[in-house]
Amino acid sequence: MTSGMDSVETHLAEVLAAIRPLQPARLDLAAAEGAVLAEAATAAGPLPPFDNASMDGYAVHASDVAVASADAPVTLPLTDQIPAGDGRALTLAPGTCVRIMTGALLPGGADAVVPVEWTNGSRERVLFYQPVPKGNAVRRQGDDVTAGAELLPAGTRLGPAQIALLAASGHGSALVRAAPRVAVIGTGNELSEPGSPLSPGRIWDSNSYMLAAAVRKAGGVAERHRVGDDPSAVLAVIEEQAAAADLLITSGGVSMGGEHDVVKAALSGHAAVTFRKVAMQPGMPQGIGAVGDGLTPILTLPGNPVSAFVSFCLFGLPALDALVGLPPRALRRTRAELTAPVRSPEGKRSYLRGVLDERAGTVAPFTGQGSHQLGALALANALIVVPEPVVSMEAGEAADVMSLP
Amino acid sequence: MTSGMDSVETHLAEVLAAIRPLQPARLDLAAAEGAVLAEAATAAGPLPPFDNASMDGYAVHASDVAVASADAPVTLPLTDQIPAGDGRALTLAPGTCVRIMTGALLPGGADAVVPVEWTNGSRERVLFYQPVPKGNAVRRQGDDVTAGAELLPAGTRLGPAQIALLAASGHGSALVRAAPRVAVIGTGNELSEPGSPLSPGRIWDSNSYMLAAAVRKAGGVAERHRVGDDPSAVLAVIEEQAAAADLLITSGGVSMGGEHDVVKAALSGHAAVTFRKVAMQPGMPQGIGAVGDGLTPILTLPGNPVSAFVSFCLFGLPALDALVGLPPRALRRTRAELTAPVRSPEGKRSYLRGVLDERAGTVAPFTGQGSHQLGALALANALIVVPEPVVSMEAGEAADVMSLP
Repeated sequence: MTSGMDSVETHLAEVLAAIRPLQPARLDLAAAEGAVLAEAATAAGPLPPFDNASMDGYAVHASDVAVASADAPVTLPLTDQIPAGDGRALTLAPGTCVRIMTGALLPGGADAVVPVEWTNGSRERVLFYQPVPKGNAVRRQGDDVTAGAELLPAGTRLGPAQIALLAASGHGSALVRAAPRVAVIGTGNELSEPGSPLSPGRIWDSNSYMLAAAVRKAGGVAERHRVGDDPSAVLAVIEEQAAAADLLITSGGVSMGGEHDVVKAALSGHAAVTFRKVAMQPGMPQGIGAVGDGLTPILTLPGNPVSAFVSFCLFGLPALDALVGLPPRALRRTRAELTAPVRSPEGKRSYLRGVLDERAGTVAPFTGQGSHQLGALALANALIVVPEPVVSMEAGEAADVMSLP
Repeated sequence: MTSGMDSVETHLAEVLAAIRPLQPARLDLAAAEGAVLAEAATAAGPLPPFDNASMDGYAVHASDVAVASADAPVTLPLTDQIPAGDGRALTLAPGTCVRIMTGALLPGGADAVVPVEWTNGSRERVLFYQPVPKGNAVRRQGDDVTAGAELLPAGTRLGPAQIALLAASGHGSALVRAAPRVAVIGTGNELSEPGSPLSPGRIWDSNSYMLAAAVRKAGGVAERHRVGDDPSAVLAVIEEQAAAADLLITSGGVSMGGEHDVVKAALSGHAAVTFRKVAMQPGMPQGIGAVGDGLTPILTLPGNPVSAFVSFCLFGLPALDALVGLPPRALRRTRAELTAPVRSPEGKRSYLRGVLDERAGTVAPFTGQGSHQLGALALANALIVVPEPVVSMEAGEAADVMSLP
């Protein structure tokens, strides 16, 4: 590692140390999608809530049809029919049967459901052509979840199946850490809005769009802001957003150089923000700290778009996870054979853009590896990780590869 | 495969055949996140738009400092400074230098940027201690993307990096197939709203929550509806939603049995909807077709929650992809060693819930494999796929495993 620089791990540890999990909030189920349980969810009652039929058929006392056969069917009079949702407290008299639908409450005394195919399908006097095992086509109360059981542990991210389980157990809401609200703040006098004409010396802003999209894709709520190279204006936006958001992510203005490093200049009075060089490429200049009365965490990412993107993957995603009380999500890692040689500066860990072909076990690095070169990034599906001491790798060598989220 | 049933592949083919890609629409960049390009995006101009500095330093004529050394530095007077965003059309006079910031427009004539560390850092008379290669720290106009080049092909899903590339190239909007609007329609008299008290014989609705969450997670826009076991009411909701949505997904009411199969009953007059048994478990009863004047595709999924979930993975996700003009996304497939035996009905392909441990190369099937058992589904991360002819597999055998989305 180059002297005067910190490792990726050191910076990540400081990022995580700067973040406290959000206050839990009770959200309606639909609003809780993608959020993270702040406490274990338990079942107030059993699931299913009552014995019920797992298919359409006839509810019987199994003993009544024990001697049934195709040659000598047993005949039982049909006394009722029970559709799903029927709440009557029925009891099945011995020597009778009822028609019952999938999901319907099994009448008292009944201990099996006979498929229609094993009968003559009558609506009056039903002929049973074979015996039925006790418990056939019956779902017992609580055979999915028993009353009081833990449904999901704290820390569970609520995807479709988890939402379904909560709903099925009657939970109309859940205590969760919700999607973090992230203020994305792009800086730079050179930035123009995409879709507007471009005057000389200026470029279209891409970082604020990219980072906001990345936050949303990762499950956060993002708001874009853009501000010029005026430290007091930048500070004003930062302070305003510190009060409104759970995390601030800036891009640009953190180089090692001069008076034009506007984010550094804006935060120069804030002892709680640390700027450092991280031994990585792209993405060397990084900052982490807290701003505002609520000590809202702020990540200051470099301004080159590829640097900002890689930095978000390494530090922004873990920050979002920490806000909802989770350890950093693991980006999928694999090893793959390089299809072309790569270079890396000594003492820095490189994250080179490439196309991973998992089936072939290969990864093809792009030629355009400049930290401004979005063209390659937009076609990449993986980052090739070249360790700090390594300055070059040959085609055919196996490299560490990290899939892009 | 059991006779009278169709294969998963046959049904999937009919699902895909029922769907035409959505009409493309031009969306603002932020609204286009996650949407799919309906045409290739091209670069109107080069990217970067102009030669610029890749770091803070001094712009020079490289030939002016060719003989510089630490012992005999070359001195050049500083004539200007150029911050990023500065649009002046400057020319660098031979024998002079200018201070230049990262991203700033390189003045005419200059052919290299010298890092501050190679100089005395002066703001007036700058001492250069070493020569600089031509092109040093200069990003050439178009070295990321040339004017007129294809940025992204049609069919690209717009993630953060793709949004960034479009933005950087000045695109304020994109012609895309947007997130499909999906009407999720749960059916059944037995369904109660989670959070409300449960009367006898009823259960809390989970399918509409689950399917809506699954649609949203897959990039669609979902609206939940619920309707009782009244064919005319079901038909009314279907017809209303056919006019409003791009895809209808129902759950329940498609069993093989009686008059209580409300979705079947509601659509009985619709020749354009086909109901069939698919040789899979869970999820045998399926339907696909088109409803309404616009022939809106409709997927009728079974009502057991696990059946509905598995059906959505197999048929719903491909339907959503087809709506945006893409081939079905590939769920990650792998092979893993069973930690416990599993059973499967002959002639049906089973999709059993399990926990895949990729590192260990194992998959642990749950004991609760009933199609109503959400408890196991909510803890699963994978489906174990047991082929149609296989009725049992032993612990230690290698099984096909499909990761859940």
